[in-house]
Amino acid sequence: MTASIANSSPTKRGRPGYDQDSVLSIAVEVFNKHGYDATSMGKLAENLGISKSAIYHHVPSKGDLLRLALDEALVPLEAIAEDERAVTGTAEERLKFFLRSTIRVLVKRQQYVTLLLRLRGNTEIERDALERRRAVDRRVSDLVVEAQHEGSLRSDIDPRTTTRLLFGTINSLVEWFREDGNVTAEQVEEHAITMMFDGLHHNGK
Amino acid sequence: MTASIANSSPTKRGRPGYDQDSVLSIAVEVFNKHGYDATSMGKLAENLGISKSAIYHHVPSKGDLLRLALDEALVPLEAIAEDERAVTGTAEERLKFFLRSTIRVLVKRQQYVTLLLRLRGNTEIERDALERRRAVDRRVSDLVVEAQHEGSLRSDIDPRTTTRLLFGTINSLVEWFREDGNVTAEQVEEHAITMMFDGLHHNGK
Repeated sequence: MTASIANSSPTKRGRPGYDQDSVLSIAVEVFNKHGYDATSMGKLAENLGISKSAIYHHVPSKGDLLRLALDEALVPLEAIAEDERAVTGTAEERLKFFLRSTIRVLVKRQQYVTLLLRLRGNTEIERDALERRRAVDRRVSDLVVEAQHEGSLRSDIDPRTTTRLLFGTINSLVEWFREDGNVTAEQVEEHAITMMFDGLHHNGK
Repeated sequence: MTASIANSSPTKRGRPGYDQDSVLSIAVEVFNKHGYDATSMGKLAENLGISKSAIYHHVPSKGDLLRLALDEALVPLEAIAEDERAVTGTAEERLKFFLRSTIRVLVKRQQYVTLLLRLRGNTEIERDALERRRAVDRRVSDLVVEAQHEGSLRSDIDPRTTTRLLFGTINSLVEWFREDGNVTAEQVEEHAITMMFDGLHHNGK
C-alpha cells in the first residue's frame, strides 16, 4: 500500500514523498477496511509506512482526516445541484441528470463515497456529513415526487419507496464496480439508468 | 436491548429466561453494530446482560455463534432452489421466483442477511459462508444468461452487469426496509420486481 505514496506525483506541501492527497487516499482505504472507529492514528501510520508525527504534519487529527475524506464525496455531490441541467427540462430529465451525475461521483470517488455510505454517526463530524448527505438525497426525492406529478414516472410505487429503490441500485455500485473491469464507467451509468427507467424486460424494442 | 430476552417466550434449553434463538438474535445485532471482528465474547455478554459462561452454555465459541447466525440467512436462501417453481416455467419466470423469494428471505431475516452481506472473509467460517453465498448467486446469474437467450430479458446489458444491478437493488433492502414502516413486505417485493423488470418510466399503461 505504501507503493502508491512512493509513486505519487510532486507533493503539494512540505514533506518529500507525501502529500495530503496521498495520506487521505490511504487513510480512507484503512477506514473502509477496518471501520473509522477501529482505526487509530497508530494503525494509519503503520499502513502509510510513516510516523504518527508525519501524519500530524498533514492533518491535526483523525477527525480532520475524516472530514477531508468526506468532503471528497460530498462536495461533488452537492455541486450537482449547481449545474444548469439540474434546473432545466422536465422533472424526469432533471431526475435522470441527478442520478447520472451521482453515479459519476460514485464511480470516480468510490472509496470516499463508500466511507460516506457506511458512516454510523457516532461523532459530530459524522453527523454533519450525514445531514449534508440527507440534503442531497432530498433533492432527488423531491424530483421523484415532481416526476410522478408530471406523469413521467409511474405512480403505483409511492415516491418514498421509488427513491429508496433508486438509491439502493445506485449506491450498490460502490460495492461492485471496478474501474479495471470489463464494463466502463459510461456503460455502467447507461445500464443502471436503463434498468431503473425502462426495466430489464425485453419488449421487442 | 436486554428487554427482548426478558420478554422472550419459553426457553428451548436449560437456563431460565434465555434460549439459543434469543442469544443468536442479540448476538447478530451486536455483530452488525460493531463488526464481527471487533465483538468480543465479553462485549456480547454485556449486551445480553448475562455472564460469559451463560453464553458458553448455549454455544461453545464466538465462531459457532457466527456460523449459526449465518445459517439463519443461508439455509432459507439455499432452499429457494428446492422449490418446484425454481425449475418450472420460462427462465424469466424462474428468475422472478428466485428474486421474489430472495427478497422474502431478506425481509424476514434482515439482520442475518445484513451480517452475511458484510462478511469480510477473515476466518474459515466466513469464507465457507461466502462460498455458499456465491453458489446461491450463481443460480441467479445462470438464470439471467438463460433469460437473455430465450429473449425475455434485454441483452443490451451484459449478463454480469444485469446480475450485479439486480443484486444491488435487492440487497439494498436490508439497509432501509423497516417492518413497521408505511410499506409492507409484499408491497416492497412487488415494487422492486416492477422497477427491475418494467422500469419506473410511466408508459401510459
